[in-house]
Amino acid sequence: MRVLGVDPGLTRCGVGVVDVAPNRTAKLVHVEVLRTPSDQALELRLLHIGRGLAALFDSYRPDAFAIERVFAQQNVPSVMGVAQISGVALYLAAERGLPVGLHTPSEVKAAVTGYGNADKRQVTTMVTRLLGLEAAPKPADAADAIAIALCHAWRQAPVPTAAGATMTPAQRAWQQAEASAKRR
Amino acid sequence: MRVLGVDPGLTRCGVGVVDVAPNRTAKLVHVEVLRTPSDQALELRLLHIGRGLAALFDSYRPDAFAIERVFAQQNVPSVMGVAQISGVALYLAAERGLPVGLHTPSEVKAAVTGYGNADKRQVTTMVTRLLGLEAAPKPADAADAIAIALCHAWRQAPVPTAAGATMTPAQRAWQQAEASAKRR
Repeated sequence: MRVLGVDPGLTRCGVGVVDVAPNRTAKLVHVEVLRTPSDQALELRLLHIGRGLAALFDSYRPDAFAIERVFAQQNVPSVMGVAQISGVALYLAAERGLPVGLHTPSEVKAAVTGYGNADKRQVTTMVTRLLGLEAAPKPADAADAIAIALCHAWRQAPVPTAAGATMTPAQRAWQQAEASAKRR
Repeated sequence: MRVLGVDPGLTRCGVGVVDVAPNRTAKLVHVEVLRTPSDQALELRLLHIGRGLAALFDSYRPDAFAIERVFAQQNVPSVMGVAQISGVALYLAAERGLPVGLHTPSEVKAAVTGYGNADKRQVTTMVTRLLGLEAAPKPADAADAIAIALCHAWRQAPVPTAAGATMTPAQRAWQQAEASAKRR
């Protein structure tokens, strides 16, 4: 299953594309951060990022789209820009008939690190390990976009059995990585 | 000058199209409220309203697009939906190369009623009078969308001179209507 995940933002919009096998192993297909200058007109920033997302949807042809659920409670200056980009991204995904997953930040953190209050560094570390990357994706928005895509894919698939004996080697590796992240 | 104004929302999205002459007289071209059911998936609601807006842009070919500036401070449950629809509307306007005007709610109220704290009823009354309509546009989202479009057109045009003698009859009618609204 190929999932395109987005960490929305006007200044930096992270996009991650992953292929996830039924045994939960994941492969990074593409990662990119779309950027716009903060002094550009709002509608041009939305257009630039929207066009970038549309091009990535059409190049990588994901089976599903995933994005963080935004809340009004996050009362930071950027929350309106985040919501506007998320509106455009959801519109573009729906236009292409893609199934959409909305996940909360703590669901995403729990999916990749094992607990919902993980910090950005832990998310980046686990994403790097789970995908077997040589270097951590930078900036954090890139790792977050991948984490959202992984979260979505894993929440669709059946959870592996608790008994390690019936797990595939990949599943065991994932469980060990998850347990190791929890110990930090 | 033809302006398409939008009062964004997921449940009801008001759209008003007005033609405004250099002497500030305004004519209603079209008014419509796009609606989606609240139990529909978010991405489908954004798609439905986005497609409706795209069709109206392409049918009425406005010279400019106007929408309210949204603030994170408006901490109501619907604010995220408002921001997401506004993101889609701004994206669609930018895609068509339209000049965009973002106006605050008090700028819109001041433009049509003469003061920035006017209530919805006063906005509707003035919109009805300024456009010479037989009945008030309903629901309030329709009148608000028209008010945003009028606000945008008037803020582009030079303000009429204070001396009534040099005003056109239409300008005088508008000033009288504005003064009458202030007395309520």
